[in-house]
Amino acid sequence: MTKTKTAKETYSVATEIVLPNDTNALGNLAGGRLLHWMDMVAAIASNRLCRRVVVTASVNNVSFNEPIRLGSIVTLEAKVSRSFNTSMEVYIDVFVEDSATGVRKKHNEAIYTFVAVDQNGCPLPVPQLVPESDEEKKRYESALRRRQLSLILAGKMKPEDATELKALFVK
Amino acid sequence: MTKTKTAKETYSVATEIVLPNDTNALGNLAGGRLLHWMDMVAAIASNRLCRRVVVTASVNNVSFNEPIRLGSIVTLEAKVSRSFNTSMEVYIDVFVEDSATGVRKKHNEAIYTFVAVDQNGCPLPVPQLVPESDEEKKRYESALRRRQLSLILAGKMKPEDATELKALFVK
Amino acid sequence: MTKTKTAKETYSVATEIVLPNDTNALGNLAGGRLLHWMDMVAAIASNRLCRRVVVTASVNNVSFNEPIRLGSIVTLEAKVSRSFNTSMEVYIDVFVEDSATGVRKKHNEAIYTFVAVDQNGCPLPVPQLVPESDEEKKRYESALRRRQLSLILAGKMKPEDATELKALFVK
Amino acid sequence: MTKTKTAKETYSVATEIVLPNDTNALGNLAGGRLLHWMDMVAAIASNRLCRRVVVTASVNNVSFNEPIRLGSIVTLEAKVSRSFNTSMEVYIDVFVEDSATGVRKKHNEAIYTFVAVDQNGCPLPVPQLVPESDEEKKRYESALRRRQLSLILAGKMKPEDATELKALFVK
Amino acid sequence: MTKTKTAKETYSVATEIVLPNDTNALGNLAGGRLLHWMDMVAAIASNRLCRRVVVTASVNNVSFNEPIRLGSIVTLEAKVSRSFNTSMEVYIDVFVEDSATGVRKKHNEAIYTFVAVDQNGCPLPVPQLVPESDEEKKRYESALRRRQLSLILAGKMKPEDATELKALFVK
Amino acid sequence: MTKTKTAKETYSVATEIVLPNDTNALGNLAGGRLLHWMDMVAAIASNRLCRRVVVTASVNNVSFNEPIRLGSIVTLEAKVSRSFNTSMEVYIDVFVEDSATGVRKKHNEAIYTFVAVDQNGCPLPVPQLVPESDEEKKRYESALRRRQLSLILAGKMKPEDATELKALFVK
Repeated sequence: MTKTKTAKETYSVATEIVLPNDTNALGNLAGGRLLHWMDMVAAIASNRLCRRVVVTASVNNVSFNEPIRLGSIVTLEAKVSRSFNTSMEVYIDVFVEDSATGVRKKHNEAIYTFVAVDQNGCPLPVPQLVPESDEEKKRYESALRRRQLSLILAGKMKPEDATELKALFVK
Repeated sequence: MTKTKTAKETYSVATEIVLPNDTNALGNLAGGRLLHWMDMVAAIASNRLCRRVVVTASVNNVSFNEPIRLGSIVTLEAKVSRSFNTSMEVYIDVFVEDSATGVRKKHNEAIYTFVAVDQNGCPLPVPQLVPESDEEKKRYESALRRRQLSLILAGKMKPEDATELKALFVK
Repeated sequence: MTKTKTAKETYSVATEIVLPNDTNALGNLAGGRLLHWMDMVAAIASNRLCRRVVVTASVNNVSFNEPIRLGSIVTLEAKVSRSFNTSMEVYIDVFVEDSATGVRKKHNEAIYTFVAVDQNGCPLPVPQLVPESDEEKKRYESALRRRQLSLILAGKMKPEDATELKALFVK
Repeated sequence: MTKTKTAKETYSVATEIVLPNDTNALGNLAGGRLLHWMDMVAAIASNRLCRRVVVTASVNNVSFNEPIRLGSIVTLEAKVSRSFNTSMEVYIDVFVEDSATGVRKKHNEAIYTFVAVDQNGCPLPVPQLVPESDEEKKRYESALRRRQLSLILAGKMKPEDATELKALFVK
Repeated sequence: MTKTKTAKETYSVATEIVLPNDTNALGNLAGGRLLHWMDMVAAIASNRLCRRVVVTASVNNVSFNEPIRLGSIVTLEAKVSRSFNTSMEVYIDVFVEDSATGVRKKHNEAIYTFVAVDQNGCPLPVPQLVPESDEEKKRYESALRRRQLSLILAGKMKPEDATELKALFVK
Repeated sequence: MTKTKTAKETYSVATEIVLPNDTNALGNLAGGRLLHWMDMVAAIASNRLCRRVVVTASVNNVSFNEPIRLGSIVTLEAKVSRSFNTSMEVYIDVFVEDSATGVRKKHNEAIYTFVAVDQNGCPLPVPQLVPESDEEKKRYESALRRRQLSLILAGKMKPEDATELKALFVK
């Protein structure tokens, strides 16, 4: 197995048009549908790191901003932001393009975590991720704080041991 | 508009069987599909608080544990855990029932936030939520810390102003 | 195998929002979609009686009343009403809740029959159902008349042998 | 509006292949999916009688026999069997063709009832149906007994007034 | 294996209503959905020639004319037009019926090619097709020119060897 | 309206994983599903040229080669290859990536044509396309021959007037 891969090698992109089938009662993209699209593209990015079957382990804070209207073009770009032993954190950037004007705006970001598994669903080790650009490095570093937070929330780490996270509050 | 409602009045439940259509390449429930189901039942719970059109505002930490197999019965129970001015935090408890043995296990929890909107998508005030059981009260209280955390992550609050959250780290 | 189960132990509930994807050309819930939802929840109820794979054996009279509008919340409640050797009659009560007013009305009832099968599709014996409430008892009793009617319609019973059903007409 | 139409003029046919997406946990066609397919083709047949928007009013006894396997070709043939003031009874004959041998067998029959409606969902009168073949005539006649039975079950007719139905039991 | 079959023996028909789920942002039938429906009915027609698993090999020129509106009834009729060693050309005629007036118009034609395969996806020989009607004969003959054109486009035949096709241009 | 755009400005990409829901009875990607995916990404590319509502006008020769297995990652890349008055020819290149090895292979090419329309479905003029790379220029030139062929097949042009196409056969 390759020992390391760059974030760029995991880059995956999906483009979708919002069809009637994807909308809620207001005629805008349903939140659950966007969550599903993000899950798909993030799964591809994490597969590109480890080349194993991957399963969704968690979804971190996802915020939806303005509604996305019927007929909009939605582009989802995903890259692995950091890998741990068997898990991979993936950042998804969502852009919405107005199909009449071509104006393209960042809609939101989301963070999903995937685990590589074998045929029985047991976790497998994954290659290390090497961030290159400034943004990749920034996301790589903050991934550690998010992991600590998530371990605390799951009761698997004590707040006082979360050194990096604690530093945010105690100066 | 009713000024307050109890958590119990917002209780919503959905039951699904995992069909071939819902599975990933390993034959287990796809993460994106479960996210979609949770979005649906949580939208119903938040509608039951405010009786307005609601849209998904954010998804907080969702963890997926063991894989859910084809043919399993999945029960999703949702209740609003706390309401703020225009937003509502909803807790979803997911249970998986083995269709052969009837054994039912807690699978995971998820927290979604919804906003009540008018026809133009502008936020509307929502009734206050009144927790009654011990668990409802506990979730009601921790909702404030989650909201502070989410405001900090969005850059809309300074860590030092998040009194309740800070207390976790500084004793 | 447990010899008997109460009707209550088979109680199953599903909640759905009518989305654009579910509607007919008038913007109301398509009949075929409701039939599908009823099949799902009734399958869960009958599985809860026998804990076997179940397959739909028949659909008895289902009436659709007023149209169910886009955005409505539909609740489907199913309970086994009576079991025979290898088959189970399931009653489904459908309620529609106006998402703006919260007013909830009984929409209709339906009766489905399921059979428990093994891996080869051969019928298997199922536990006996024990009705408890008045309504459960009433449905339990009338199930026999429906079964006679259905055997007559299938040419497997002579009208004069359908004692309970005949009593409706001959006094 | 044309005053009468023959049963043959309402003949509608649909052909489907059973795909993974249509199957239950045993890999056979899910009952709910077949109910949906029957609803679609029967709606077309009843539209061909009245040329109005039609909505499903009821589903009469539908029996499912042997399982229909993945990959089978399912042909659904529908014809209106009788029309009343605003409603139409439709017979659907389902055939299953083995895609490897070409052997085609009658799988089951179903009876649905549709109502013609205007834009507000109010019932509209429909043309009279004229049966021609022997089978069409037989189904036309028995439709009256089914209607009486359904009115009795709905509490809208007294058993003793159902002359044609009563004759089955009292000789 | 039967050595020959008539075109008529492969005749397959599907009928669909255009539902909200099938439409594009203008409320008309999405092109991709019609392509999918044509693929299904053509697969059935080619299976009826060879009684083997068939896979889509190519789609020849398909033109879409006027938009097909929500609520229209679409009838797709498919027949194998010619068979080669392991492949079958299928003609699909699409008709659109206005559900309010009953007026039925030819919408378009399409030509798909299918290959019969074994469990490993290897091509299998198929029976010869015998055209009977004038239209079947005309389509049978032109199939050869289309095959030459397609071999030229794929770089598998030199234009000068395509005798029948060349005759169109050189007189 | 911008008068011209480069081919590169219309570049659109979609990435899909083949799920059980997308497969045929052999467990491979169904042809109809791939046709649908190609339609979607090509619609986005042509919208990016004209920024109008676009509708599928025709599908030119599409060949499917080897089967695409469950779990494969499919990447679809689309660019407008040439524009005419109101129509746009779009080239779609399909790549399949083995999710276990990462090996990525060209699967096939397809050519679709789209028309820009107003709210009533009437054709609208579109900007001219400017090819830049060698491949873009080659596809731009051959688009004229394909258009002539398609006009001949539709009976709207005489073979002898198709100067560019004729040159293929007559030297």
